[in-house]
Amino acid sequence: MPATHDNDQIHTLSFAELAHVLRQIFLRHGTSEEVASVLSENCASAERDGSHSHGTFRIPGYLSSLASGWVDGKAVPVVEDVAAAFVRVDAGGGFAQPALAAARPLLIEKVRSAGIATLAIRNSHHFAALWPDVEPFAREGLVALSVVNSMTCVVPHGAHKPLFGTNPIAFAAPRAGGDPLVFDLATSAIANGDVQIAAREGRTLPAGMGVDRTGAPTQDPKAILDGGALLPFGGYKGSALSMMVELLAAGLTGGNFSFEFDWSRYPGAQTPWTGQLFIVIDPDRGSAQHFAERSEELVRQMHDVGQERMPGDRRYLQRAKSLAQGIEIPQAEWARLQVLAQG
Amino acid sequence: MPATHDNDQIHTLSFAELAHVLRQIFLRHGTSEEVASVLSENCASAERDGSHSHGTFRIPGYLSSLASGWVDGKAVPVVEDVAAAFVRVDAGGGFAQPALAAARPLLIEKVRSAGIATLAIRNSHHFAALWPDVEPFAREGLVALSVVNSMTCVVPHGAHKPLFGTNPIAFAAPRAGGDPLVFDLATSAIANGDVQIAAREGRTLPAGMGVDRTGAPTQDPKAILDGGALLPFGGYKGSALSMMVELLAAGLTGGNFSFEFDWSRYPGAQTPWTGQLFIVIDPDRGSAQHFAERSEELVRQMHDVGQERMPGDRRYLQRAKSLAQGIEIPQAEWARLQVLAQG
Repeated sequence: MPATHDNDQIHTLSFAELAHVLRQIFLRHGTSEEVASVLSENCASAERDGSHSHGTFRIPGYLSSLASGWVDGKAVPVVEDVAAAFVRVDAGGGFAQPALAAARPLLIEKVRSAGIATLAIRNSHHFAALWPDVEPFAREGLVALSVVNSMTCVVPHGAHKPLFGTNPIAFAAPRAGGDPLVFDLATSAIANGDVQIAAREGRTLPAGMGVDRTGAPTQDPKAILDGGALLPFGGYKGSALSMMVELLAAGLTGGNFSFEFDWSRYPGAQTPWTGQLFIVIDPDRGSAQHFAERSEELVRQMHDVGQERMPGDRRYLQRAKSLAQGIEIPQAEWARLQVLAQG
Repeated sequence: MPATHDNDQIHTLSFAELAHVLRQIFLRHGTSEEVASVLSENCASAERDGSHSHGTFRIPGYLSSLASGWVDGKAVPVVEDVAAAFVRVDAGGGFAQPALAAARPLLIEKVRSAGIATLAIRNSHHFAALWPDVEPFAREGLVALSVVNSMTCVVPHGAHKPLFGTNPIAFAAPRAGGDPLVFDLATSAIANGDVQIAAREGRTLPAGMGVDRTGAPTQDPKAILDGGALLPFGGYKGSALSMMVELLAAGLTGGNFSFEFDWSRYPGAQTPWTGQLFIVIDPDRGSAQHFAERSEELVRQMHDVGQERMPGDRRYLQRAKSLAQGIEIPQAEWARLQVLAQG
């Protein structure tokens, strides 16, 4: 039976088709060729892997931020070779992903020669998931860690007002017998997008996710959105990790802390103007053992004690499905994207 | 009114006196001069700072591990200069702290020249707190991160049997206006020692700390100790971080995973035979801004939103008190230490 309601109709397309349309959209809304290429790949990858909150869902936010003048879609990152294992980039008020792309060859060269290297990105906007930034390093046999701070919405443990961002930590490591182990976790108890979805659906949240505008704990997503804030995951421990993310991603890079930027004069701005840090290691320098074999042994043991899914596996499953059967997008969403790509 | 019960009597002594007695104890129980110096400083520092679970409380465990032949108290660490930013150490089946001490000058030299460097320690036993390993780097203006895996006692998220260790993560960063920001957090929901104390006192634990021998959630500390296990903090996120610690501290260094060593033939052995990783960064390479001023700004803002105590502050308060008024140890404990120091 064919679907009769417009919202139920699904358009199926290939990764290349989706990336192409997204590239056109970015190009027609004020980005350079280079920025359009990097962001369209990134956004299409999220949609392909089922990371819907960072897929085409983000396009309106990207475009309103570009239109407001808050983020420079044509910024050219300036890469500095600071020391034998240290690269830094001024993203020029543009996006973080093109800054990473510009610095990546030098970073990898340093990791291969020095055993470890770091990349400090500042003056950058990060509006995407963090796992696409680290997974490619693991595919080259490297171990990568990245942190990015965002915008004030999380109350530090023991405090009564928000200060930190959702401040994710992402990690990627190769394994001999499968796709890399990759996680990307917000140090907040819940993502902002999930609070919005719960509010829309009229659901109550589990305890410990957020506070209302008076700082009192609440399970009502609307109270969190209406002047309230999120809590860190895992109490004081998640809060300490969130503080670490501020220090590494902003304090160390020269980027803004999550509470430092003011976009009030840029209506429509949604992209956090902060910084990002990468630490990348050549794991085979550590010992005579082959790292990917060792991580595979850990995976075997994790399976043996009953952990069925490794970090990253849900994305890989969806990715395989998308690549085999195409990426499914609601017809209405596809129509909106096509309009944006024209004008 | 004078205390009448022996347990109530307190002996007060200086840091130097405590470290001296501990040094004698280590020396008389099979360690080298170098190892005795490092471990006695470490253990006395924990006692001084109120980290009682890693203070003199640990001495019986150290001594029974040494007596069993499980750990080599006279091991001489072998330091290898692997690359411009990579140092590795074979601890020779000895303790991790002397291995760090042996490699530290080379590590810091590399951090100063390369901007970041890593130290991979393998074949090592870590039986102490992790914060004493990172705090000194921050006192030299550096940012330090360290992870160490331990022994199987934590059930990975979604699994039904334990595999990971308590696998702590420690971080230290300098600040301009005060003692460094330092945290040392187990990736388990609770420390093993705290479960033992709760069992002794007949207390019930909060939900989410552990499981019984069948893998069912329990709040009974005795059920956890009797063949049960701990859970990671913060659900799947803490579990992912614990996996990362296994990969970095053991997979990358050539050390044992928490589940790999077998001490059954060494009755009395208590020290986990694993590995440890350090990542140390010169934060002033990241930008033209002075890192310690930036971290101080973050602290100011954390205070402003109501977070009174920064990570590490509780230890610093106790440290100041101990240095001013002496370290207080129960008289019976002091008598035991003196006996151990004699023979």
